[in-house]
Amino acid sequence: MFITFEGVEGSGKTTQIDLLYRGLVEEGFSVVKTREPGGTVFGESLRQVLLHEKTAVNPLSELLVFAAMRAQLVEEVIRPALKEGKVVLCDRFTDATYAYQGYGRGLDLAIIGTLNNLVTGAIRPDLTILLNCPVRKGLQRKIEMNSTDRFEREDTRFHDTIKDAYEKMALEEPQRFYVVDGTGNREDIHGIIRKKVGELLNHGV
Amino acid sequence: MFITFEGVEGSGKTTQIDLLYRGLVEEGFSVVKTREPGGTVFGESLRQVLLHEKTAVNPLSELLVFAAMRAQLVEEVIRPALKEGKVVLCDRFTDATYAYQGYGRGLDLAIIGTLNNLVTGAIRPDLTILLNCPVRKGLQRKIEMNSTDRFEREDTRFHDTIKDAYEKMALEEPQRFYVVDGTGNREDIHGIIRKKVGELLNHGV
Repeated sequence: MFITFEGVEGSGKTTQIDLLYRGLVEEGFSVVKTREPGGTVFGESLRQVLLHEKTAVNPLSELLVFAAMRAQLVEEVIRPALKEGKVVLCDRFTDATYAYQGYGRGLDLAIIGTLNNLVTGAIRPDLTILLNCPVRKGLQRKIEMNSTDRFEREDTRFHDTIKDAYEKMALEEPQRFYVVDGTGNREDIHGIIRKKVGELLNHGV
Repeated sequence: MFITFEGVEGSGKTTQIDLLYRGLVEEGFSVVKTREPGGTVFGESLRQVLLHEKTAVNPLSELLVFAAMRAQLVEEVIRPALKEGKVVLCDRFTDATYAYQGYGRGLDLAIIGTLNNLVTGAIRPDLTILLNCPVRKGLQRKIEMNSTDRFEREDTRFHDTIKDAYEKMALEEPQRFYVVDGTGNREDIHGIIRKKVGELLNHGV
């Protein structure tokens, strides 16, 4: 089973993926937790370059680096883990590319689709948890964490576009997306996610 | 006018591009000299990651990083310079991707073509100088220069494949490729290249 987490900056993805990972491992599941961009040694090196580049990065170039990181992650981590029957949890995946590089940067969605298909092959998330959270609240969390990269420093209008894009995609694929209010208590949010994942694990996808 | 230089490792591309650059500048031409992979601040950072990664890099991921560097180089350097009527000299370009990632790593040539077209738009080299040089001689030069990256450390069979690929491509596009024996005296080689470039500059492409 392949579960991805999506949401605007500071929506609590990392916290929730950690809680779900621990919960599933305690129950005896074999779980792999990874993240995008990055998730492999090569990918993490590219991530550092991408997130902290000081000069202007061409949007198409940015898109291709994301695709490169994803290709490495799929072949090195995700595909082998799914083959072994493990549960794979991934912090961001293909939907983030549509949201950020497509709706956010204005790149052609068809080109993004072609690249996504090229690097993922037949692998698609069985479930995508979308953590919904107001943009300003999420960015505020990031500032408090002293964590601001090239994406987080974009203006709030950029992040509003990302939020709208995620909501649009969730409406387009209601079977795969599970939208969760990310503003509440972290244990409550975890409970909601855990219940949904439990249903899928017990009854099959 | 857009001129690219191709050839196996140690074939003398860098030396010849420098000599041509200086020659053309002395004659009053406005010339931009760049290189792949790299050629921009962002691209050079990616180049460092790509050439010196210690873990196994997935071939598709490698291809996408090359495409990302090329997208940045085209938009930041090559396209603006050509627009201003400058002569652009580039150390490796799209042909290198066919040679290394296509023939060398065995990736689908159609995928490479799609990515090359995506990042270059309508930009094609007017002239491609292929410096021909025996693989072992080229690699020996690199060893003497104490310069060995992830590609240069590949076995000689890999480099033989690259050499064959370049020769095949030159035969397929004799109008664009100009094959020069790279084993002779550097000034003689420069003279041959300078003559060919002069013809093009005087009579148009």
